[in-house]
Amino acid sequence: MTETETTRPDLESWVASANEADADFPIQNLPFGVFSRAGSDEAPRVGIAIGDRILDVARARDLGVYAGDADVAARACGEPALNALMALGRRHARALREETSRLLRADGPAKERQARLEAAALVPMAEATLHLPARVGDYTDFYASISHATNVGSMFRPDNPLLPNYKYVPIGYHGRASSIVVSGTPVRRPAGQTRNDPNAPPAFGPSQRLDYELELGAFIGRGNALGEPIPIGEAEEHLFGLCLLNDWSARDIQTWEYQPLGPFLAKNFASTISPWVVTFDALEPFRAPALARAEGDPAPLPHLASAADQARGGYAITLEAWLATARMREAGLPAVRLSRGSFTDMYWTVAQLVAHHASNGCNLRPGDLLGSGTVSGTTKDSRGCLLELTWRGTEPIQLPTGETRTFLQDGDELTLRAWCEGAGRRRIGFGACRGTILPAQPRG
Amino acid sequence: MTETETTRPDLESWVASANEADADFPIQNLPFGVFSRAGSDEAPRVGIAIGDRILDVARARDLGVYAGDADVAARACGEPALNALMALGRRHARALREETSRLLRADGPAKERQARLEAAALVPMAEATLHLPARVGDYTDFYASISHATNVGSMFRPDNPLLPNYKYVPIGYHGRASSIVVSGTPVRRPAGQTRNDPNAPPAFGPSQRLDYELELGAFIGRGNALGEPIPIGEAEEHLFGLCLLNDWSARDIQTWEYQPLGPFLAKNFASTISPWVVTFDALEPFRAPALARAEGDPAPLPHLASAADQARGGYAITLEAWLATARMREAGLPAVRLSRGSFTDMYWTVAQLVAHHASNGCNLRPGDLLGSGTVSGTTKDSRGCLLELTWRGTEPIQLPTGETRTFLQDGDELTLRAWCEGAGRRRIGFGACRGTILPAQPRG
Repeated sequence: MTETETTRPDLESWVASANEADADFPIQNLPFGVFSRAGSDEAPRVGIAIGDRILDVARARDLGVYAGDADVAARACGEPALNALMALGRRHARALREETSRLLRADGPAKERQARLEAAALVPMAEATLHLPARVGDYTDFYASISHATNVGSMFRPDNPLLPNYKYVPIGYHGRASSIVVSGTPVRRPAGQTRNDPNAPPAFGPSQRLDYELELGAFIGRGNALGEPIPIGEAEEHLFGLCLLNDWSARDIQTWEYQPLGPFLAKNFASTISPWVVTFDALEPFRAPALARAEGDPAPLPHLASAADQARGGYAITLEAWLATARMREAGLPAVRLSRGSFTDMYWTVAQLVAHHASNGCNLRPGDLLGSGTVSGTTKDSRGCLLELTWRGTEPIQLPTGETRTFLQDGDELTLRAWCEGAGRRRIGFGACRGTILPAQPRG
Repeated sequence: MTETETTRPDLESWVASANEADADFPIQNLPFGVFSRAGSDEAPRVGIAIGDRILDVARARDLGVYAGDADVAARACGEPALNALMALGRRHARALREETSRLLRADGPAKERQARLEAAALVPMAEATLHLPARVGDYTDFYASISHATNVGSMFRPDNPLLPNYKYVPIGYHGRASSIVVSGTPVRRPAGQTRNDPNAPPAFGPSQRLDYELELGAFIGRGNALGEPIPIGEAEEHLFGLCLLNDWSARDIQTWEYQPLGPFLAKNFASTISPWVVTFDALEPFRAPALARAEGDPAPLPHLASAADQARGGYAITLEAWLATARMREAGLPAVRLSRGSFTDMYWTVAQLVAHHASNGCNLRPGDLLGSGTVSGTTKDSRGCLLELTWRGTEPIQLPTGETRTFLQDGDELTLRAWCEGAGRRRIGFGACRGTILPAQPRG
């Protein structure tokens, strides 16, 4: 991979909002999403975020600004989902992003051409509705933070927190694709079976232990055929980009239902993702060799072993979860930060998750989503869910209104954020992934 | 539900092959599928099986044979999948099936009209390629046979075979939609991590414990909105039909990977379904009140409790699995039956599976597939997988060639069949669900 113009930290855009120091979407980012003008009956289509604007790729293409691979990629952007673009593979998306960077750079097109592009193809984000970026065919959630696995394991199995397979198998399970929703969609508190007293029968009712999970989700680009594994050395070519992912979890339902086949209704009532997908190309300057593998840990088995992949390592992405209760919002109080973690705390690289998933011949398709699992680190403030933060509800969190939280209450608004910064580079961000808890459905 | 013409046991068709005593597809069945003429470049479209023919529904509609709801339903049959028909809901599919029954009955249309229909819209099944009947958005596999759960549990937890949640929670987990294939698709032996010696590290290689699972799969018709549960009393209206399902399983991979989040790569390399979907309307005459609930078992919790559903009960469907090894086929020997079970051995009704799945607000979509889990009964020959039949490989099966089997070998052909019969009714069948094991992919 070569350093592209979009990774040049000094580059600015003629879209002024993209140049602000705290902008999530400077010209170095250029994430992909799907939008339509709010209140219009226009079909949703692919856009690229730049500052507080969205570049309507299909309209830009109509102006004849793309050529070659980038033009082929832009042709796929009239669709209401990123799947067609993803299916073309990483080379095409990269070409489109690079040509878009040249279009939007301050020293790029002449003023007159900028004005034409702005009039025809730039939409204020405030006037847009953002949709799910892709049709997710299959959603898999991994469990790739060893701190999260150890914390949760120690609550359920104090003698044996980390199971013997953990350092060999990138543990994952299939999630539900139908209930993946885009940021801003309200989340209804699920009802379900729970049992508080092991000597009494279970009861059915609204979950009392509703939790968030701070994760990233990796979108698959080009797929593989059924029966044909993806070698670890080729896994990155099958990756498109990352989004924020809140894998809402009902811990009381989970505790009762999860044996022996894993979480089911505790998770599949909703999973919220951010509308903007940050490409792995944009993240490339923020590779961080350190992962959470310790000295003496077993070497990865052959299908997961790649010296190059280990050297390239993870991504230095900071992730945060913020809470604003209904009372806090009424009082005009700002949200409070619950978690702050780092994606370098993962035990497995994203390439290892892909190679493992396809190692038995399972076919991954463009638009499939691979969740990282809750991102937790070794410090208390880096724990990525309330189950860990309040240690199963035993250590409540104090809020500025005098309220406390062990788990989420109706009206709570939870927002995830993430970004990369440092090393003399422009900060790039993921935008927000937000959901507010609605009361449980009254039973008719 | 009223008794329709298709449930009249004395009714015959002018398609003679439909009237043979052992026909799977008499006029009382009329299952839906998706086909194209083999070797043609015609687009796949919806067909209805009748004897050894397929009624091309869209072509029949062009002759003006349908009206009202049936016509609306027939309009959805030009699609390459049943999803559009399923989405219309049970009333429309029922109307289409009833009008089709009238079209195909021996005392139905005049000879001249029969000849016109035959020439324009009847395709010999032998000249057709059968496709996946639906685009499966999400695939869920349940665990609804208490004998299967008890057998498997007793191998892994001799002291505690049936977990305390089993009689309260219809246990299920999310499966993989991308790797669902239609009958006849070869199945490549998966590679994966296994550990035979608990004191040694795991190894990566081809599975040595490849198994089949004899199941039925229920297709969802009309869906529900996210956040809106399906009451148990309405669940049947969301059901379209049943197919055969072989949930191939790599037991050695499963044993090592499945804790704590459930089966993953042990299952998602392939799941084979039959091309014909038998409607719940066709199955209605074979309702069987007895389910595998014992005296003294706990009453279902409110979201699963319906006296009407319990009285209507299950379906008296006989299921079989047949094995023909490569050597048996070369010697011209017929397949041997491994399993013969009954769908009345399920602990939960199909309606309970649907109501449970949506009880937390999870949205089911048209074409979603709900596997029953392995259908096993209390007798040895009714065990629905090799894990149980050979008791984890300790009791090999003898074959007529002198070969033995504990688990599947390369070249083995496994065929599932199912049918309903008795009570003075015409037998109706599911056709076949077949797969042959290919050797593991050589590692490059």
